[in-house]
Amino acid sequence: MSFIDYIFQLTTYSELSEKLQQPLVSLLLLLFLTISYLMGNSLWHKLFGRNKFLPQGKHAYVTGGSKGLGKAVAKLLASKGAHVTIVARDKEHLQIALDEIKDAAKNREDYKNLIFTAISADVTSYEDSVRALNDACEIHNGRAPDFIFACAGACKPGLFVEQDILEFEDGMQLNYYGTLYTVHEGVKRMARQGIKGKIVLVSSILGVMSFIGFSQYSPTKYALKGLAETLRNELLLYDISVHCYFPGTIDSPGLQQENKTKPKVTSEIEGAEDAILPDQAAKALYKSLCRGDFHITSDLGGNICRVASKGPVSPTNNFIVDSLLGGFAWVGGIPFRYYIDKKVKDSKAQYPISD
Amino acid sequence: MSFIDYIFQLTTYSELSEKLQQPLVSLLLLLFLTISYLMGNSLWHKLFGRNKFLPQGKHAYVTGGSKGLGKAVAKLLASKGAHVTIVARDKEHLQIALDEIKDAAKNREDYKNLIFTAISADVTSYEDSVRALNDACEIHNGRAPDFIFACAGACKPGLFVEQDILEFEDGMQLNYYGTLYTVHEGVKRMARQGIKGKIVLVSSILGVMSFIGFSQYSPTKYALKGLAETLRNELLLYDISVHCYFPGTIDSPGLQQENKTKPKVTSEIEGAEDAILPDQAAKALYKSLCRGDFHITSDLGGNICRVASKGPVSPTNNFIVDSLLGGFAWVGGIPFRYYIDKKVKDSKAQYPISD
Repeated sequence: MSFIDYIFQLTTYSELSEKLQQPLVSLLLLLFLTISYLMGNSLWHKLFGRNKFLPQGKHAYVTGGSKGLGKAVAKLLASKGAHVTIVARDKEHLQIALDEIKDAAKNREDYKNLIFTAISADVTSYEDSVRALNDACEIHNGRAPDFIFACAGACKPGLFVEQDILEFEDGMQLNYYGTLYTVHEGVKRMARQGIKGKIVLVSSILGVMSFIGFSQYSPTKYALKGLAETLRNELLLYDISVHCYFPGTIDSPGLQQENKTKPKVTSEIEGAEDAILPDQAAKALYKSLCRGDFHITSDLGGNICRVASKGPVSPTNNFIVDSLLGGFAWVGGIPFRYYIDKKVKDSKAQYPISD
Repeated sequence: MSFIDYIFQLTTYSELSEKLQQPLVSLLLLLFLTISYLMGNSLWHKLFGRNKFLPQGKHAYVTGGSKGLGKAVAKLLASKGAHVTIVARDKEHLQIALDEIKDAAKNREDYKNLIFTAISADVTSYEDSVRALNDACEIHNGRAPDFIFACAGACKPGLFVEQDILEFEDGMQLNYYGTLYTVHEGVKRMARQGIKGKIVLVSSILGVMSFIGFSQYSPTKYALKGLAETLRNELLLYDISVHCYFPGTIDSPGLQQENKTKPKVTSEIEGAEDAILPDQAAKALYKSLCRGDFHITSDLGGNICRVASKGPVSPTNNFIVDSLLGGFAWVGGIPFRYYIDKKVKDSKAQYPISD
């Protein structure tokens, strides 16, 4: 007696002929998976979930807000009725972004009450980060922001032995410290004022897995995952919720810059990966914040990587769906590792070491 | 018909009374787990495994080699017949460690051929890291080390909002850059000279999970995990193997320093955790290197955390054992998260925010 037969003895289909059983099992399994997925992701939340992110009338502070994901997040939050402050270095791009943000909110009834601000600052400097946040608070009568979205970041791929140590330091300074400085100052102010806000750190898929070419980038994004992991627990002291976003490739000005130095073997491993638009990435982030997810991704591949690296403490987004994904990742990761390892071994001749 | 009955129909025990079945199932399960564990860990390796780490006659370069784990690793490698160079700042402790290292090897027949060196250097400085490695190579006629053990590191616990930004920077400088500088210079030299060596990064259990009090430390150890993840794949170009060690608490001078600033709630969560001695931690590392493990831990708790955060690409150490541990971590982590979150919420009154 097969296990399938056993299962069927418990159902009303036990009288069905053997030929019918296998397709039926597949169908039931598919149905179960579909329902689980729908329930785990949007349907369940829409029907029964409480929206855990209501930006209307709140103040969102967005670093890296003049381009890419940061700008898209700022526009989306403005369209939902949030006051938005964007921070970036380049004044010209800040002005363009500010116009787009205003445009995104202009059809709202409460438009004239909304405050949109652009602040030119270098988030890799601690003093400048504090100054920018202070300026933003002053505009809101000294009140700290309700939400901090730390979107500033960049990737410079290259071979480990060929990259200069300064490139590693620059990456950490922008991606990790550029987040830490703002979050540290922001959390202190939020906690003191009793603002039960949100901190959103932007890591990357390359913050939970990595391969050749990303030694300058991955460690900085892993560090952000670690910061999020600590703060998720610690900031319960002040009822501040922490979220960590692991987006896949985003089709932004940063990606074009990144591709200039990317080793060929790295591009080959990435393959013809579909980069999503910043607006899509911002929407995925927004939806997950409404659900209250801690670890956030933008696509199925990202979800598999997220679950496989979740760690023992971090919460799942949906226990059933994440368990299925986790089981898949546990086995499915093996051929991927063989593939990337073979790609690197096969490219030895392409990358002779120079003296 | 229960599932257990179904299982037993496939065995010769199907005629056993119902009363006997349940203990028998438990016994069989226990036997299966025990055999899996033994096979997965030492027995299997001893019977059929090839030793993938033979330090005899090779040159091991150990940062943080004057105290704690670094000194214990240096002594163990010396006792196995390796040439050992230790690097640390304090000359007095270096001399004490050097004497202990010599002592550990003095009964060996090849003792008089072994070269033991102590170099005073500050690994948080790039220039000093390069200079120290250069000095070590010169002693070996310009040849790069075969193994780099990057053991220098420290933890300064505290509350996120209370710690100064300089403390975060100091932590990253020692734990991450103190490793990166040496590994970057070392790998360049090993690759150029065609030395098929080993790089051992020392992360921490707090490099795969974290909670209140470790925001200054965890991100630096997560960053090392990310560096290891990239280099495991990339350094296949030069046949250099990469390993990442996630030890639990080690009873070292560093721990006493750490406990001085540790918040009470952090200590309570950690509980009466048994710190292992540096020599035990070094032995666990050595055994895992002999097995060729990529992610290395020192105890069962560490193994559960390691597997739960493995990521989609990193290899398992033993597929069967790690799968069982992974399943356990997936469920067992939930009550632990509830516990640490409750501890933090309950300690709100203890940690009022100051202006």
